Amino acid sequence: MTAKIIDGKAFAEALRIRIANHVDRLKSQHGITPGLAVVIVGTDPASQVYVSSKAKQTAEVGMNSFKHELPADVLEAELLSLIAALNADPAVHGILVQMPVPKHIDPNKVIETIDPAKDVDCFTPANVGKVQIGLPGPVSCTPLGCLMLLRDELGSLEGKNAVIIGRSNLVGKPMMQLLLRDNCTVTVAHSRTQNLPEVVRAADIVIAAVGRPQMIKGDWIKPGAVVIDVGINRVDAPERGEGKTRLVGDVDFAAAAENAAAITPVPGGVGPMTIACLLANTITTASLINGLVPPSDLTA
Amino acid sequence: MTAKIIDGKAFAEALRIRIANHVDRLKSQHGITPGLAVVIVGTDPASQVYVSSKAKQTAEVGMNSFKHELPADVLEAELLSLIAALNADPAVHGILVQMPVPKHIDPNKVIETIDPAKDVDCFTPANVGKVQIGLPGPVSCTPLGCLMLLRDELGSLEGKNAVIIGRSNLVGKPMMQLLLRDNCTVTVAHSRTQNLPEVVRAADIVIAAVGRPQMIKGDWIKPGAVVIDVGINRVDAPERGEGKTRLVGDVDFAAAAENAAAITPVPGGVGPMTIACLLANTITTASLINGLVPPSDLTA
Repeated sequence: MTAKIIDGKAFAEALRIRIANHVDRLKSQHGITPGLAVVIVGTDPASQVYVSSKAKQTAEVGMNSFKHELPADVLEAELLSLIAALNADPAVHGILVQMPVPKHIDPNKVIETIDPAKDVDCFTPANVGKVQIGLPGPVSCTPLGCLMLLRDELGSLEGKNAVIIGRSNLVGKPMMQLLLRDNCTVTVAHSRTQNLPEVVRAADIVIAAVGRPQMIKGDWIKPGAVVIDVGINRVDAPERGEGKTRLVGDVDFAAAAENAAAITPVPGGVGPMTIACLLANTITTASLINGLVPPSDLTA
Repeated sequence: MTAKIIDGKAFAEALRIRIANHVDRLKSQHGITPGLAVVIVGTDPASQVYVSSKAKQTAEVGMNSFKHELPADVLEAELLSLIAALNADPAVHGILVQMPVPKHIDPNKVIETIDPAKDVDCFTPANVGKVQIGLPGPVSCTPLGCLMLLRDELGSLEGKNAVIIGRSNLVGKPMMQLLLRDNCTVTVAHSRTQNLPEVVRAADIVIAAVGRPQMIKGDWIKPGAVVIDVGINRVDAPERGEGKTRLVGDVDFAAAAENAAAITPVPGGVGPMTIACLLANTITTASLINGLVPPSDLTA
């Protein structure tokens, strides 16, 4: 193995320290305590773990954390009226509704109801459009995390040939916007792409975001490329004992690490960046809501 | 010359007939006469010509055309209050403010004031975001025109390697969304791209939207590629007499036509499509405003 392993956990820790410093500054210089409201509907264990982790990290950086738990059978109208109340609450600068919501609730209605000014997930059309146009605002959390890791690794991304595999609204499409803004030549590949290995072989930067375990092979990686693996897939691991599993990315890590200059591991790569970037977005929205210029080191 | 010359003028004429049929249907079946309001500030001759052409074509397809001419020194607040009145007017389904506006008026404020439901230019962040997410709404006019020409030429675009040169908010970025939605592998190249000729040589579909006369050379075009030239550049034409000029695209047309399977000329290619697509968007918004499903043959 020759590649540098990009330590997302350490980067996210350092980012949270920067965020905590911005929280201190907002409190002491402007009398603002950024506040993040998290809404969870139902008792899905994975969502519960994720929401607890968000709440814990929010408090740790010195922000106010507001947690709203609603029963799985809550009426859609009740959820929407809670969001409206959070939109109106001046102590709340970010609103996150943990997805997925139960089937009787329309997720698009939920997203439409969130005030774009407080939409720290960057799910509302207005914020998605602002990222494309280049206007200030929150930026999709996982792509923002990938961008920060890339900038840290490479410095300027100008003129790099970036290939994104996967075109989801959550990762692929916002990632394309951010890499284009950083002056990469950007290619988006996906399930209908012809000759994917050849497309990937031309990339200086590979972003894998397809959700298929280890589908990007090691010999597709150009020597010296930087590989960011967004996939988190659970696969059987009989070598660890009967019924055991382990997490793998979308990239065949061991083989890719033979060619890449640097690569993110799974877990411990992109994963830890997502919540940290959610907190970063809350600083951005708290700043904009109060007519302040958001800190440049926390956004795209 | 071997390439088929794509006749945008004829395609736009046929499109306007389809639009006129949809206008008839909306009138007779739903009692709706689609209406497009065009606002022009000042007396720039090019803008005047363009606005007159829009008004004429709007009336020709049977829509209501509302023209508002404001003096060059109009107060920003007055323009914004006109837009607010148009937002509230039920006879108006599309609002277009001719750009550029005079320097004392902030174009972003103008765009922000237009109700996204009536934003037929697809300039508002909410509509830009909807195109990325895949929600129904108006689509940027010039990219929509390019898409229609490509579909007409190629049928399905699935798996085609599309290269867009230029990343403007008006053309390059929305074009990327539309081609991705049609299952192309999409690359966006621009001024910072390394080795542009090689990037273009891999393209089955070339979209040139840089605004630099004839910068895309003929030998960059892969044999059999389809070339869409969005550029409209005025250059000196001493061969036509002293002081004479002519229009050329971003592609070296004569040389590219030796390699391409099909290519749009300048003028007469993409140009005529833009206003036709503005009318198509007005059908889309008039439908959505009235709770009707917009016709699928007029959008992306």
